[in-house]
Amino acid sequence: MNINNKIYFVTGNPNKFKEANQILSKHHIQLEMINSKKKEIQNNDIAVIAKTSLKETQKRVSGPVIVEDSGLYISSLHGFPGPYSAYVYETLGCDGILNLLRDQVSRDAEFRSVIAYTENKKTSNIKIFLGITKGKISEKICGTQGFGFDPIFLPLQIDKTFGEIDLTEKNKYSHRAIAINNFASWYLINK
Amino acid sequence: MNINNKIYFVTGNPNKFKEANQILSKHHIQLEMINSKKKEIQNNDIAVIAKTSLKETQKRVSGPVIVEDSGLYISSLHGFPGPYSAYVYETLGCDGILNLLRDQVSRDAEFRSVIAYTENKKTSNIKIFLGITKGKISEKICGTQGFGFDPIFLPLQIDKTFGEIDLTEKNKYSHRAIAINNFASWYLINK
Repeated sequence: MNINNKIYFVTGNPNKFKEANQILSKHHIQLEMINSKKKEIQNNDIAVIAKTSLKETQKRVSGPVIVEDSGLYISSLHGFPGPYSAYVYETLGCDGILNLLRDQVSRDAEFRSVIAYTENKKTSNIKIFLGITKGKISEKICGTQGFGFDPIFLPLQIDKTFGEIDLTEKNKYSHRAIAINNFASWYLINK
Repeated sequence: MNINNKIYFVTGNPNKFKEANQILSKHHIQLEMINSKKKEIQNNDIAVIAKTSLKETQKRVSGPVIVEDSGLYISSLHGFPGPYSAYVYETLGCDGILNLLRDQVSRDAEFRSVIAYTENKKTSNIKIFLGITKGKISEKICGTQGFGFDPIFLPLQIDKTFGEIDLTEKNKYSHRAIAINNFASWYLINK
């Protein structure tokens, strides 16, 4: 049992921490960022990547801990950039994705997020929580909020990209918010 | 010391085995394929990926062993697809790369290969051998030989893609052949 409700979030991305923290603080769950790029394996399944990262993290962190892995999956590109979204954003950027879709009819895409959690005792299991937001890739880059491919992702619910809405609104629709809320629901019952 | 000169090559790609085997057999080094997709981490440096894969492989294979990692690095795309070339080939294919380069002036690129070798005794070190072939990305897909991005890679030495030449000719110029030859030169002195 985790009496003081404090959970570590190992990530090198302060934006991810902000998003998760805004949601978990409403549930009175204290989140502390450990600023460290987690080790990741190459795999097409982000749940496998997150689980493996968490196992490696367990050696270094004492106490309850989460890691998150996420990706943008574009249907007409066979799921690309998927688990390698961060690398693809760094090299090709949003423009690269728009170029790749110039001749494609479908712009269907989804953002996926996986949270992996462990209480971090030797006997404890790893729990996995998934969040998916369906949407489309926009025709051009719109907005400067969020991070990564947010300015080209139009969630189905609204006519704006993730780059055009603030954190509070993004947390109503985003894949990461869904995964974090799924985690919080489970955690508050099981902690 | 490896008396019978037999080395295991752990790879899920028979093309890579064929290329390496053609070269090593000339040096009277016996290569045996262990058909297994090696575990890979996410890293921008293929030497780090190969080294980590070899360490994991050491647990499963008894005897001298090599693994290979390679990638296509395109200058104007900041090195993309680099270490994720296999994934990018599966999702975007050669057409995806040609699309990404439509508006780019430079088509400069290089293929890199890293061989990681260990004699596989607890005390043995891991040795790394690098091969680089400089070239350009062609304007269209040419040839059906080789594998992966071979049909769009023009090595500087000839006016044909790797897809238009046979294995023997590819082994005169290829990044993998250079890395394998570097390994063979070292191995024959140090085995």
